[in-house]
Amino acid sequence: MEHNLKEIYTYAKSWVKEAGENIRASFPKTLNVTSKSNPNDLVTDIDKETEQYFIEKIKGTYPDHRIMGEEGYGDEVKSLTGVVWIIDPIDGTMNFVHQQRNFAISIGIYVDGEGMIGLIYDVVHDELYHCVKGQGAYLNEVSIPKLTEAKVSEAVIALNAVWVSPNKRIDHELLIPLVKDVRGTRSYGSAAMEMVYVATGRIDAYLTPRLAPWDIAAGIIIIKELGGVTTDLRGEELDMLQQNSLFVSKPGLHGDILKNYLKDGKW
Amino acid sequence: MEHNLKEIYTYAKSWVKEAGENIRASFPKTLNVTSKSNPNDLVTDIDKETEQYFIEKIKGTYPDHRIMGEEGYGDEVKSLTGVVWIIDPIDGTMNFVHQQRNFAISIGIYVDGEGMIGLIYDVVHDELYHCVKGQGAYLNEVSIPKLTEAKVSEAVIALNAVWVSPNKRIDHELLIPLVKDVRGTRSYGSAAMEMVYVATGRIDAYLTPRLAPWDIAAGIIIIKELGGVTTDLRGEELDMLQQNSLFVSKPGLHGDILKNYLKDGKW
Repeated sequence: MEHNLKEIYTYAKSWVKEAGENIRASFPKTLNVTSKSNPNDLVTDIDKETEQYFIEKIKGTYPDHRIMGEEGYGDEVKSLTGVVWIIDPIDGTMNFVHQQRNFAISIGIYVDGEGMIGLIYDVVHDELYHCVKGQGAYLNEVSIPKLTEAKVSEAVIALNAVWVSPNKRIDHELLIPLVKDVRGTRSYGSAAMEMVYVATGRIDAYLTPRLAPWDIAAGIIIIKELGGVTTDLRGEELDMLQQNSLFVSKPGLHGDILKNYLKDGKW
Repeated sequence: MEHNLKEIYTYAKSWVKEAGENIRASFPKTLNVTSKSNPNDLVTDIDKETEQYFIEKIKGTYPDHRIMGEEGYGDEVKSLTGVVWIIDPIDGTMNFVHQQRNFAISIGIYVDGEGMIGLIYDVVHDELYHCVKGQGAYLNEVSIPKLTEAKVSEAVIALNAVWVSPNKRIDHELLIPLVKDVRGTRSYGSAAMEMVYVATGRIDAYLTPRLAPWDIAAGIIIIKELGGVTTDLRGEELDMLQQNSLFVSKPGLHGDILKNYLKDGKW
């Protein structure tokens, strides 16, 4: 193959682990929190420094690779030609600021538009979820089993309360019957973490109406590798060049929810 | 004092840690899940064994202490006279079964109706939250700082999606404006864990319409010790002899939410 995926994978894992160590080392210091466009979108110096760390490492080793990053220090990526790293240095910034846990580093590596390598690092727990397409997914060194089918009545799904009350993004009336019929709902406040929860079968599905590419780039590669289904809330393919709604799920369950609750996207 | 609280506290901590070790040791085995009254109320052999372990230890050391436990192997407790241990061997059983994380052992020790010792053990993370009334609260050996005031607009609260959609327990229309006004909502699926999240300031408040005494007995002691406010959803005192709704919060925020969203209990 044209690109040495094995080498890229090895570098990516070591950089993610080192970035995580730096984040852990920062905890005793007081965090300098500044707000982005709105108070819900917190950003910290650590967020920015972590993205800059990745850019330096990637550009130093692979000058022709391009980088799409949440904090905007990367390239202006308008196509997925070649190798593109899609990076969220800290997914779940609000959790990072309020909790110093329940956040993750998320990196998806795409080659000519195809998701090839996914890495999500739960920094606090030192749990790295990772895969190369077609070679199985791992939590640290342990192989993650393939996802099995699940029924709505036995499912625990990740869904935030805000989407079940009137909101601008999705008709909450669509989701109310689903909340009634499932076994339980959870909400962790980090798309990357909710996606590794789906990947490991800890939850059965995750639904949310608007995310950026860096929130989901890694998670969908890992979930697909394990046999899960990754679409938007209308059942359409996800596009890494724009915002998407997201619906990731165990097989079987995905079709049931799409048909019986999300009306096959006809809304 | 009549009862040797220091000794009780020392025993309680060591038993909780040992019970947690036993639970961790059980993980590689296949869990034998049976359902209680409904499929949402899962119970496992480990749940039962853990409660029986505590009963054996407590009765062997303190034959005159009484025990109220979720699994029903304790005493039939109809008053809080003397020393009463209120025990949930695994709070968050659904998480225990689905995730093998996000559950806790919860023990509140009451003396003549007053909460004197609280212990919540996050078994997987080996994090023991504990206190004796008036002596400060700790996460393992580290002192937990007192809770400070918070504003609704900057608050992250724990609230499950099910309470924001039509349900039998609470008028969801009361909660919808709150979901809109806070910075974010979370839901972890274990009352004990959500209460230690409040105790440590990781979330600012937790609201839920119906819990049993063993779900909350320990958490309210720890939160009170840190200056938090613990009431039901109408602002009334909690009663350890019956089910309660629950509203625990940082100071300041509790009064704001009670007045401006929960209508001072007039519903």
